[in-house]
Amino acid sequence: MGEQQLDVVTSDELKYVPRSEFGRLLAADLDAQTRTQAFAALCRINTLYMIAQAWSGHLGTSFSSLEIMSWLFLNELRDLDKGPDACDVFFSSKGHDAPALYSVFMGLGLMPDDKLHQLRRLHGLPGHPHVETPYIQANTGSLGMGVSKAKGMVFADRLMGRERKVFVLAGDGELQEGQFWESLPTAVHHRMHEIVVIVDHNKMQSDTWVADVNDLGDLEAKFSAFGWHVTRVDGHDTAALHATLRSLDAVTDRPKVIIADTVKGKGVSFMEGPATEAGQLYLFHSGAPNEDQYARGSLELIEKAQALFTSSGLGTLALESRQRTARKPVLAVQRLVAAYTNALIAQASRNPRVIALDADLVKDCGLIEFRDQFPSRFFECGIAEQDMVSMACGMAHRGALPVVHSFACFLAARPNEQIYNQASEATRVVYVGSLAGLLPGGPGHSHQSVRDISALGAVPKLLAAEPCTEREVELLVDYLFNHAEGSSYLRLVSLGWPVPFELPAAYEVVPGRGVVVREGRDAVVFGYGPWLLSNAYEAAQQLASQGVDLKIVNLPWLNRVDREWLREVVGSARQIFTLDNHYLHGGQGEMIAAAVSTLGLEPSVRVTPIGVTELPECGTNEEVLAYHQLDTEGLLRQFSAQLAGAPGR
Amino acid sequence: MGEQQLDVVTSDELKYVPRSEFGRLLAADLDAQTRTQAFAALCRINTLYMIAQAWSGHLGTSFSSLEIMSWLFLNELRDLDKGPDACDVFFSSKGHDAPALYSVFMGLGLMPDDKLHQLRRLHGLPGHPHVETPYIQANTGSLGMGVSKAKGMVFADRLMGRERKVFVLAGDGELQEGQFWESLPTAVHHRMHEIVVIVDHNKMQSDTWVADVNDLGDLEAKFSAFGWHVTRVDGHDTAALHATLRSLDAVTDRPKVIIADTVKGKGVSFMEGPATEAGQLYLFHSGAPNEDQYARGSLELIEKAQALFTSSGLGTLALESRQRTARKPVLAVQRLVAAYTNALIAQASRNPRVIALDADLVKDCGLIEFRDQFPSRFFECGIAEQDMVSMACGMAHRGALPVVHSFACFLAARPNEQIYNQASEATRVVYVGSLAGLLPGGPGHSHQSVRDISALGAVPKLLAAEPCTEREVELLVDYLFNHAEGSSYLRLVSLGWPVPFELPAAYEVVPGRGVVVREGRDAVVFGYGPWLLSNAYEAAQQLASQGVDLKIVNLPWLNRVDREWLREVVGSARQIFTLDNHYLHGGQGEMIAAAVSTLGLEPSVRVTPIGVTELPECGTNEEVLAYHQLDTEGLLRQFSAQLAGAPGR
Repeated sequence: MGEQQLDVVTSDELKYVPRSEFGRLLAADLDAQTRTQAFAALCRINTLYMIAQAWSGHLGTSFSSLEIMSWLFLNELRDLDKGPDACDVFFSSKGHDAPALYSVFMGLGLMPDDKLHQLRRLHGLPGHPHVETPYIQANTGSLGMGVSKAKGMVFADRLMGRERKVFVLAGDGELQEGQFWESLPTAVHHRMHEIVVIVDHNKMQSDTWVADVNDLGDLEAKFSAFGWHVTRVDGHDTAALHATLRSLDAVTDRPKVIIADTVKGKGVSFMEGPATEAGQLYLFHSGAPNEDQYARGSLELIEKAQALFTSSGLGTLALESRQRTARKPVLAVQRLVAAYTNALIAQASRNPRVIALDADLVKDCGLIEFRDQFPSRFFECGIAEQDMVSMACGMAHRGALPVVHSFACFLAARPNEQIYNQASEATRVVYVGSLAGLLPGGPGHSHQSVRDISALGAVPKLLAAEPCTEREVELLVDYLFNHAEGSSYLRLVSLGWPVPFELPAAYEVVPGRGVVVREGRDAVVFGYGPWLLSNAYEAAQQLASQGVDLKIVNLPWLNRVDREWLREVVGSARQIFTLDNHYLHGGQGEMIAAAVSTLGLEPSVRVTPIGVTELPECGTNEEVLAYHQLDTEGLLRQFSAQLAGAPGR
Repeated sequence: MGEQQLDVVTSDELKYVPRSEFGRLLAADLDAQTRTQAFAALCRINTLYMIAQAWSGHLGTSFSSLEIMSWLFLNELRDLDKGPDACDVFFSSKGHDAPALYSVFMGLGLMPDDKLHQLRRLHGLPGHPHVETPYIQANTGSLGMGVSKAKGMVFADRLMGRERKVFVLAGDGELQEGQFWESLPTAVHHRMHEIVVIVDHNKMQSDTWVADVNDLGDLEAKFSAFGWHVTRVDGHDTAALHATLRSLDAVTDRPKVIIADTVKGKGVSFMEGPATEAGQLYLFHSGAPNEDQYARGSLELIEKAQALFTSSGLGTLALESRQRTARKPVLAVQRLVAAYTNALIAQASRNPRVIALDADLVKDCGLIEFRDQFPSRFFECGIAEQDMVSMACGMAHRGALPVVHSFACFLAARPNEQIYNQASEATRVVYVGSLAGLLPGGPGHSHQSVRDISALGAVPKLLAAEPCTEREVELLVDYLFNHAEGSSYLRLVSLGWPVPFELPAAYEVVPGRGVVVREGRDAVVFGYGPWLLSNAYEAAQQLASQGVDLKIVNLPWLNRVDREWLREVVGSARQIFTLDNHYLHGGQGEMIAAAVSTLGLEPSVRVTPIGVTELPECGTNEEVLAYHQLDTEGLLRQFSAQLAGAPGR
């Protein structure tokens, strides 16, 4: 098809390589280098396809790792045909590169072909690796765990008399995580020669160059000092990869690391890391290409693949295509992170002691403006959350007001002990966790933070709060920065949402007290955050047409409830619903339900908890909400079922 | 006094150096070396005194660090007289050496003299450093946070135009923590020359030689590879310390580390690390010397100090003495960790897939027998909890049943995200956290684990359970190892306790269901664990004599309650008490209270929660229980107050 076909790549038509073309390549009589290079070229087309179709995914790191993954799966891993429990193990510790790995699986027939169209869809291919997908050997997405897991695998294999190699692909950014360095020594102590770590050394982390964030320094010297055997190679040169891997065969007394120099975004000229202008953020870490970027990128990739096919005597590369899923319409939504950016800058303008700390999420946490406006009060920690929190502890001890940022999933869990330690010094730190809760549903459960309230809720004097509108962001920030006695945790839903109600003009935030956003007499519903309250509100509007009238209460405080306020707001209602964008256990609802029972109300009040009850599913936002019954329809069903069965009705 | 006085050091009389003798030394016209050596010698006497008086504390690491601390406080730290906020900063990141630091404070008049007699007593000197004590600059006890905190201090100081040096004393063992290595790079990036880390390199961690656990390798090469300026010195040679510190003055472009070679237990011949025989555990990490060890050790220390006084022309060292607090009588107690040892070995004998992992607490976690009996199935991780958990994750993925051990305070918090990640793979790991809860009260809040139920309770499918007797240990271990669907957390009180009730002979453990240990009609009390239930039982016995009859229920499941069982066991009672050896927030009581309100019982039932409501105090067990109102008397008061005010009475 060649030129003629390339012209039909348009903004809404996406091209992919069908399995049959991989089959043709693999059956051809080619040398390993040529075959692998062409295989990787095909995988790039499909990786771009998947991410474009899903409207999200990590292009840069997927592209930088494709020669490595392709070489390993085509030439190095033994016994792939015996299944994932019997073959040599490969997994990516960084995990962002899942689309690349899926494309390799698909190319080799290790997964059903139609999964290619299901990236980040319900029961499809999760945004980050999950062991439910065959040949995925570890859940990753939270960083720095790879070598530890590999050691565990080797220890268990040795115990059971199995001899398997374990290849771990690591990213540059995750080398900033302490666990990575913590995991190196005992691999030496136990002479775990079965382990080969390959660093996809593309020199970039989420937003920019690693060296600008938290320089890795002399990586070879570091690994050597930790007792590992170190080699270095061009990670896109399959012949060099081959030679390097063979050179490792002779090293049988210790674990090994290959530092593979790669290019982030390799394969598409304008997506390659070095194409980023100085001072600019790299644009293709996460997030999908737009229509134009897809068209241009796809064109480049297809041309390269076709050239390899032609030179290999394989003729025309036969692509297939699908319509791209439609773009989401842009609605008038409440954008809490943007509101937070403004509120933070307002506070910092008034208070010179405000310092912001970031862990490689300057864009997602809304910190770019702060960094540019207050460079001397901004500390970029890199992917080093424990270090970040204990630094904030030291800053607070010396009189500053540190504000610590990350995604909620990481912030509540990785530095959990460090936060408790800080709180034990009775200083004040504000923790801000964005990307809180079930949505967005695409990245998968490592990023869907539905356990953070429980993980932090018992920290003494720490106030946890979650706003539902931009205005409430401003009110809560003002309270937590200026009036809270101890530390605090501001939990932010990152996804914009059209909120159908307004908070009363006179609303003021008071810890433990909330605000009624819809009056009603038949039952009281407690919740927080934009989409949870909005969906409940919509459900209540629908119920009203059936003559059932729900009172909806926004309680932004996640680990405090004022008992007297609770008594008042419950009034004479005999049925309460609690809503949690969080597991039921340890969420706000459990706290409210417990508080109700301490009141000893007569006649008694029944509390029905609604929230997340199992590991979050990955999928589109609509799919995920529907699956967990937290969309309007799901809430309506749950309200109705309970109200129909209630003794009072 | 000399020889004559030394003879009167007996088993129950403890000698200490009064402040006046320090004053005499400091006023004398001596060179800095001589003064510092003599000061350290006096501090050793007082360190031994404090630990003997408290019957607990860390001798080995206190002794190894005394020349370093003495030199810094006498000769290096500027502006000590201006108070802790204005002077150069020193703090110990390891924190175990608090008695040594306190003895330095006392010698310099930086704390009231009488505090010397209050180690590990209520409102005295905490077992681990707490910023409430003047000149303590950081809460430590959980390891590896020191450099991070120092960086935060420097950043805040720079912002506020202050110029202070920050000295951080680190231990060997804590260099196994990932946070330590995580914290090094940005100190280089920001050229934090104000920071000097001194590694008290005594080559031992809790139980044994570091090299046998998780070798640190070439420390100098490691620090150099991370970009720090490295020097090495004999940490007991004050002249060398002086020269080394001066050599650092010229280094103004990066942070610095001094590797100080020291001897654990330095100063008392038989307490010194090298005196430990091969294959033996080091005996003086934590825990007090017995009467004979005190007498012999004290004799050595006093002789050395007297010799230094004599050679310095200071004449006789005038000591004072106090009676040693009486030894606790040995009662017939339930020892849960010992029972756990037996249960683990029984399981391992039946199931070859059981692997035990330890984080440098082989003795405290009851693992010595397992290690000796199943050496191929034991993995010593060192102080590396995150690595340990992710290793277990890898082992479970390859078909093993890993059992992960640490203190509850560390296990629930440090690897919090790693535990969630493991659970997300739907494999099975058993987590065993000893030293759970408020007691023992001596180590202080870093070790008093009263937040672990909250921190882990929401992990999907993870069953958390706490036994109250040795027999229940066996039953729960059997359940968690052989019948639980997912992972589990076994929470163990380490302190032996005389339990006044017996569990019914027919008792079988069923998740979410408990067992009545005392029948009663007036109210129902739910609790768990040995001392909490015992104290409640004793209180109920006393209330019975006043005609009030409490039902006491042991519910060993910390994050599960069976609603039907709950309905049955509550019966017609209208008052419930929940007891928590944990913060009220996120504890078992909150779960029970919430469950009660979902039942909608008529007439309504009031739940009164009892538990820990603030950061735990340090002190003797009796002091701590009384302070938190969880001793028999405190429970009695709380039961009585509520029952007197209850509408039904």
